[in-house]
Amino acid sequence: MNDRIVHMLDASPSEDLIQVEGWVRTKRDSKNFCFFEVNDGSSLRSLQVILDKNTSDIAQTINRISTGASVTFTGHLVESPGKNQKVELQASDVILHGEAPADTYPLQKKRHSLEFLREIAHLRPRTNTISAVARVRNELSYAIHHYFHEKGFVYVHTPIISASDCEGAGEMFQVTTLPLNSLDGSKPIDYSRDFFGKQANLTVSGQLEAEIYALALKNVYTFGPTFRAENSNTARHLAEFWMIEPEMAFCTLEGDMAVAEDFLKHIFTHVLEHCEEDMAFFTKWVQKGVAEGLQQVVEKPFIHLPYTDAVELLHKSPKEFEYPVAWGHDLQSEHEKYLTEEIFKAPVIVTDYPKEIKAFYMKLNDDGKTVRAMDVLVPRLGEIIGGSERESRYDVLSSRLKEQDLREDDYWWYLDLRRYGSVPHAGFGLGFDRVVQYVTGMQNIRDVIPFPRTVHNAEF
Amino acid sequence: MNDRIVHMLDASPSEDLIQVEGWVRTKRDSKNFCFFEVNDGSSLRSLQVILDKNTSDIAQTINRISTGASVTFTGHLVESPGKNQKVELQASDVILHGEAPADTYPLQKKRHSLEFLREIAHLRPRTNTISAVARVRNELSYAIHHYFHEKGFVYVHTPIISASDCEGAGEMFQVTTLPLNSLDGSKPIDYSRDFFGKQANLTVSGQLEAEIYALALKNVYTFGPTFRAENSNTARHLAEFWMIEPEMAFCTLEGDMAVAEDFLKHIFTHVLEHCEEDMAFFTKWVQKGVAEGLQQVVEKPFIHLPYTDAVELLHKSPKEFEYPVAWGHDLQSEHEKYLTEEIFKAPVIVTDYPKEIKAFYMKLNDDGKTVRAMDVLVPRLGEIIGGSERESRYDVLSSRLKEQDLREDDYWWYLDLRRYGSVPHAGFGLGFDRVVQYVTGMQNIRDVIPFPRTVHNAEF
Repeated sequence: MNDRIVHMLDASPSEDLIQVEGWVRTKRDSKNFCFFEVNDGSSLRSLQVILDKNTSDIAQTINRISTGASVTFTGHLVESPGKNQKVELQASDVILHGEAPADTYPLQKKRHSLEFLREIAHLRPRTNTISAVARVRNELSYAIHHYFHEKGFVYVHTPIISASDCEGAGEMFQVTTLPLNSLDGSKPIDYSRDFFGKQANLTVSGQLEAEIYALALKNVYTFGPTFRAENSNTARHLAEFWMIEPEMAFCTLEGDMAVAEDFLKHIFTHVLEHCEEDMAFFTKWVQKGVAEGLQQVVEKPFIHLPYTDAVELLHKSPKEFEYPVAWGHDLQSEHEKYLTEEIFKAPVIVTDYPKEIKAFYMKLNDDGKTVRAMDVLVPRLGEIIGGSERESRYDVLSSRLKEQDLREDDYWWYLDLRRYGSVPHAGFGLGFDRVVQYVTGMQNIRDVIPFPRTVHNAEF
Repeated sequence: MNDRIVHMLDASPSEDLIQVEGWVRTKRDSKNFCFFEVNDGSSLRSLQVILDKNTSDIAQTINRISTGASVTFTGHLVESPGKNQKVELQASDVILHGEAPADTYPLQKKRHSLEFLREIAHLRPRTNTISAVARVRNELSYAIHHYFHEKGFVYVHTPIISASDCEGAGEMFQVTTLPLNSLDGSKPIDYSRDFFGKQANLTVSGQLEAEIYALALKNVYTFGPTFRAENSNTARHLAEFWMIEPEMAFCTLEGDMAVAEDFLKHIFTHVLEHCEEDMAFFTKWVQKGVAEGLQQVVEKPFIHLPYTDAVELLHKSPKEFEYPVAWGHDLQSEHEKYLTEEIFKAPVIVTDYPKEIKAFYMKLNDDGKTVRAMDVLVPRLGEIIGGSERESRYDVLSSRLKEQDLREDDYWWYLDLRRYGSVPHAGFGLGFDRVVQYVTGMQNIRDVIPFPRTVHNAEF
């Protein structure tokens, strides 16, 4: 597997015959020679290949090669006279696998808008931007699995299809095998005929099930797809997105904050170290200072700030906000950015939010008004992680369910976790695609996932 | 994170005060001392804890501790006089976090049937068998990501919701936001009102989309959930299961077979090395010889056998099969087992199946009758991997679509991959849950995934 162009580019000249496989990015003709840039997706950089046109039996093949064609060149690496590369391939032979006729192939050598590339999502990974995103996304995924594995967390596959109504029915996708065109809306739906014998939906979070495993294996995490049928046609929303949700037993909010900080620093360090070239590309072409911003998150200690103090700080600030700041209301993106970019110039973990704006499962503080929630805010983005210590007291959880008009029956097993061997436990969640968006600086989340699913769009 | 019981069990006696967190498995009283077995999910083994009952202020706490209770003990490790462990904890203090009342806690110290445990899937990870499965499942997942990462494969998140009809409409789950109880079956469904503006389903495979990325990045893989709305109530079927699908460009069937063999050997070696204790447990209590069987797969070269030769060998065999062997029909499990267990006593890769019993996208051989498919068969299980070289020729693919009554329009982008820069490429798929089942020897697939989804069952 060391036959990749990324390795050849750093190899030394040699008389050994090697084969280079890839897709032609450009082709340039001179009288006696033909020059190609060949890319195989292992790097932004292409390998330059020089072929002697006078080798009689390949002249015809050369004519059929154009941008996008797939080829295998045979030759050996020689020192390159050009300043852009150390070596180039002096080719003695070429195999053309597949042409890419210039009159129809959409990816000619010119700049294409990201909007246009979304329409040809089956070809866009052959571009610099989208292949760089794919490589960064891959390294981020791996860094996440690696981090948790090294720390002894067990990866848990929580269910995608959920028949419990636990998470609030709104904005969920229904999953069914009922033949819709034979339903009679005037009668109640007979769910006994549906596949699961009851109404089923796509999950919006694996947290509650992750808690089950944390209360047996101590430290666990999920990394899987989640769904939201939200009618939000923005550059930040996907209907199908990947989430990471660690959950830790014998852990309070303090431990939760420590792991969240350590985790972010680890995965950003990994990308900075393993995707240097791609990060330089994003910094140059996509978002100025993006790599530097990650570096700062890695270096700075995260500030811990109770929500009530945050509100006070924002009140005192001279800045005029579009949305007024008021205790009891959620912080808006502009407030979060002001805290991280102006006041602290560092990542900030805001804790202890009013219970009314947070979920029922978060641990109630002794003040009876706030819960042990945390939002991790980073400059440029705002919230990147949301988490909390979970309510581990049976009676308090039961009251909180009633307060929010949720039925205890729907949560029988979740309550059981507090009835049998309950412990302080905590966790957090982060949307993977938003992290990729943050790390790469890409403006639209549709460009950081291979095949985005959004309102009225599920192509490919 | 080195505060786990699995590490303490191998530590040396020390005067240092340490804390042990976990759940009580058993409690035993003597006149002056109380003995506990404490487990934290990091190992099958529990740590023995000895507490002096005469320490006045903890006597009452001790009384409330029973099997299932969550505790933190403070003490120091001393040499254990028992033969089952090197060290034990001499505890000076205990915190009881949560009781587990003996009259209602379902997991008392006795054997529970796996059927019963399925009904309490929220508590079953606290048992030896299910926690061992979770640890093996975790190590297998990690081994898979690690293998592909080291080989330069890019992890691709292919879509879960699919609006293309590519994969044959049968047995798919429909995904919708239409209010079912307001549909009028006498009229055609107005899908413009549905979330995606058209009919959408849960994916049955990420292969076709993985091919898109392979034809840009060369080597890629998927690892995600897939779905089958099959009415199969067996010990081997799940409606929701996790699949791994590598896809490689510039790769023919030979390369595909080589990677499949190397891959299986790598992940089995990883489990044998990293889950020794759990594998010993499965070998002793669940399936005799299970670890040894894995070891043999690791050690033996895989046999390559064309389907036509396989049929001939089976014809010649003295064995009377339940299902007769006939060229043109799929091999049954009994045939697959006979090949691996009786004839070759090794894993066997059967290749070049009749085109009628394989998918349209597999490369047609020059004989016009067989395709470049492969099934990897292992002893005890039969098929563990299915793969093929893909049809990379536009014209042949187009004819194959027609032969199978598939519409070219539905496959426009898949055909485009053959129109622009097509290359020989190949890949395979394996069902992750079946691999976990094979590795652990568990009889029922419902016991190797945390929360199984099957016909009329989507609890938790």
